Amino acid sequence: MAKDKKVEQITDMDVDFTQWYTDVCTKAELIDYSSIKGMFIYRPYGYAIWENIQHILDAEFKALGHENVYLPMLIPESLLQKEKDHVEGFAPECAWVTMGGSDKLEERYCIRPTSETLFCEHYKNVIHSWRDLPKLYNQWCSVLRWEKTSRPFLRHREFLWQEGHTMHATQEEARAETQRMLNVYADFMENTLAMPVIRGRKTDKEKFNGAEETYTVECMMHDKKALQGGTSHYFGDGFARAFDITFTGRDNQLHHPYQTSWGVSTRMIGGIIMTHGDNSGLVLPPKIAPIQVIVVPVAMHKEGVQEAAEKLLETLKKAGIRAEIDLSDQSMGWKAAQYEMKGVPVRLELGPRDIENGVCVAAKRTGGEKLTLPLENVAETIKTVLDDVQREMFDKALRNLTDNTFDAHSVEEVRDGCQKGGFARMMWCGDEACEVQMKEQAGVTSRCIPFEQEHIGDVCPVCGKPAKQMVIWGIAY
Amino acid sequence: MAKDKKVEQITDMDVDFTQWYTDVCTKAELIDYSSIKGMFIYRPYGYAIWENIQHILDAEFKALGHENVYLPMLIPESLLQKEKDHVEGFAPECAWVTMGGSDKLEERYCIRPTSETLFCEHYKNVIHSWRDLPKLYNQWCSVLRWEKTSRPFLRHREFLWQEGHTMHATQEEARAETQRMLNVYADFMENTLAMPVIRGRKTDKEKFNGAEETYTVECMMHDKKALQGGTSHYFGDGFARAFDITFTGRDNQLHHPYQTSWGVSTRMIGGIIMTHGDNSGLVLPPKIAPIQVIVVPVAMHKEGVQEAAEKLLETLKKAGIRAEIDLSDQSMGWKAAQYEMKGVPVRLELGPRDIENGVCVAAKRTGGEKLTLPLENVAETIKTVLDDVQREMFDKALRNLTDNTFDAHSVEEVRDGCQKGGFARMMWCGDEACEVQMKEQAGVTSRCIPFEQEHIGDVCPVCGKPAKQMVIWGIAY
Repeated sequence: MAKDKKVEQITDMDVDFTQWYTDVCTKAELIDYSSIKGMFIYRPYGYAIWENIQHILDAEFKALGHENVYLPMLIPESLLQKEKDHVEGFAPECAWVTMGGSDKLEERYCIRPTSETLFCEHYKNVIHSWRDLPKLYNQWCSVLRWEKTSRPFLRHREFLWQEGHTMHATQEEARAETQRMLNVYADFMENTLAMPVIRGRKTDKEKFNGAEETYTVECMMHDKKALQGGTSHYFGDGFARAFDITFTGRDNQLHHPYQTSWGVSTRMIGGIIMTHGDNSGLVLPPKIAPIQVIVVPVAMHKEGVQEAAEKLLETLKKAGIRAEIDLSDQSMGWKAAQYEMKGVPVRLELGPRDIENGVCVAAKRTGGEKLTLPLENVAETIKTVLDDVQREMFDKALRNLTDNTFDAHSVEEVRDGCQKGGFARMMWCGDEACEVQMKEQAGVTSRCIPFEQEHIGDVCPVCGKPAKQMVIWGIAY
Repeated sequence: MAKDKKVEQITDMDVDFTQWYTDVCTKAELIDYSSIKGMFIYRPYGYAIWENIQHILDAEFKALGHENVYLPMLIPESLLQKEKDHVEGFAPECAWVTMGGSDKLEERYCIRPTSETLFCEHYKNVIHSWRDLPKLYNQWCSVLRWEKTSRPFLRHREFLWQEGHTMHATQEEARAETQRMLNVYADFMENTLAMPVIRGRKTDKEKFNGAEETYTVECMMHDKKALQGGTSHYFGDGFARAFDITFTGRDNQLHHPYQTSWGVSTRMIGGIIMTHGDNSGLVLPPKIAPIQVIVVPVAMHKEGVQEAAEKLLETLKKAGIRAEIDLSDQSMGWKAAQYEMKGVPVRLELGPRDIENGVCVAAKRTGGEKLTLPLENVAETIKTVLDDVQREMFDKALRNLTDNTFDAHSVEEVRDGCQKGGFARMMWCGDEACEVQMKEQAGVTSRCIPFEQEHIGDVCPVCGKPAKQMVIWGIAY
């Protein structure tokens, strides 16, 4: 690094959260802009976070019996149109290929915004008998949605994701899969990304185009707005009927199979930034941090310091810790600021006096006093420190969620509370008209009908009719 | 599996190699067709081979200091046009996006056929000083080339690949990188895919659009035609000048950096099939086989057989061998044929008498007598057997290459020899006119100017002028 390079300042998150977010994305070198609006470059550090997420999720999907496949990126318009609700939802934001080389195409193709139609076309070729079921497929790829506005990680025209697609012989099995995969996402976000979630079902208004039911995990960001972390959809046999997919059952009769799909994307990285970040920059959960520990030698010119620091690095790496060392000639202050900006969970300093005393000094990215750690068994100790950081991050995020979720019994209460910041819990009659009114009068959308229901009132405060369910309302990204 | 399911017959490879190839791709469940011509579906078994290739190569790239990134899939036409030779080569086979939602775009975008131009746009933002160099990037993605003809794995309109892109402060360093990555490919193909290669340089006529030099690894298929296995390009500072990328050197002056790119694709899977396959189907090199060992219990209804087979499976898995078990009610003959079709390197049978004798019986996919192996230390023994299979495959392929490479001293010799099948080695003057004439009169293309040169004549047999180099000629996929 250049000696004269300064650690660049970022905007105060309490002054301008939006600008703070953009600053972190660029200054932590997660992302770069391209010449096409809304299409971003995932830089090495940002992509490495995604790779860590991929490795963990991919192993979980496979352990549950899912197989990876890769389907084409283009969908013929006629194929997209086979399921009515689906095409209505996606056609307005498709990018269309109309020319191949110098020839105008007979039919135009859209770049996949999601792949249900492509999977259905393939299912028709590979599902014939009950013995061919279930089909448990997953695909890692990018998808394209031609949106008007964009923000790094949160809304790209092209973004990276995984899309699971499964087919089952019975409704019950497909519903169980939808639920199972939502729980995989919820557990992953809580245990790996340190982001507490609310698990629930989307209202009909908010569900996925073409789905019978959409389940969701909803998270609260530092600014108390909502981020949808992942969704899991149950389609019934709607697509199977539209695509004429059948199988011969054990009863020797023809049946339509039942379908699910589920996905999470690099949007989660936006969620990590907005849940855990602070005015010094990014704060990464140790479990997905590309660098878990940065070793910084103190007074490196002194004899034996660099060697001892490199030995420490090797000890950590051998124990499976993702550790790196900074041997540059930057100042200690610069290095501290730099690795704070990059969200490295633990900075480990080692100077001549430490070596004499057989210790090193750990600074946790989550703060608190520096820890003096014996060099003996240091890798095991560091693992405990990383676990502490991971837990502290979850606890802090959980406090934010708990402290800013409130019960409301009127539209005004929801409006005032959510505009100030937070999630409102309110009873609802189930009518879409009331949901629309909430948007108009309180400026909020329904985040979900949480699985954990409470009876906090008898009527829907919007219309006064008997209430059916408790709904979480909020302002969403 | 359905009890009545037959192992389907495939075409005899010596009768119709093209049909044999297509049969293997579909019957081994590697690939499916989509409704768009030339766009294929990578099925679980085919994709799993690619994943194994990815894991090994990705680790090698990273060990050499490369970082993964992800750049947009769309290239504005104006960006593609910045390097003249490059756009001339690729524009005719681009798919063009002209509509976003219902709006006609002001500028059309092509789906990336390769990403040099996108990387150059990004380099401009991230390269400023000699301290920023080298940039060693790699990207795993799909690319699109709107070709007229298509064949599974060998020629897709959309295919999966990796593309490495690097920038260096000096010519020497960039040239060394080009060479280094070609050697990574060559070693990978020989040691992991069991495919012997010829390393060399492409003639100017055959090099990559926009490159100063293209290095290649060329393989010989079972039918003695050539397959280009992977390429590595040196660009000099041509793109850097076209894109105005500069850095401040140690001398405090502005310089253009020097560039490379290198790639391999799922085409390699086509190469594996055509190098190693036989009339029973696929033959997979153990190092990338999704299933290395299939355990098949004999007389499964007998007491203790299934348990013993499952215990054997666990022993193999614990030792890190990719093993599976077939507990279906299919016949032994069906199972043997099925796993031969899928190219599983070792089939391991275990029946009541074997259990009594403390042994199991291994059948290698490469043939030979069945091996009776003690159950004691069976995992270690199997690893040796897998190594044997890997080596036997390489040796067989090497014999094919050696036996069918011949020296030629006239156009007719090349024509007759290559039409019959094989690679011709012939001296060449270096003139493109002679190369064109070879195509017209002998029906061959130059595969490469091999690094290992021999002096097998003084003149170019086409024009009679003094020869400069020995060239490998052949008929290519």
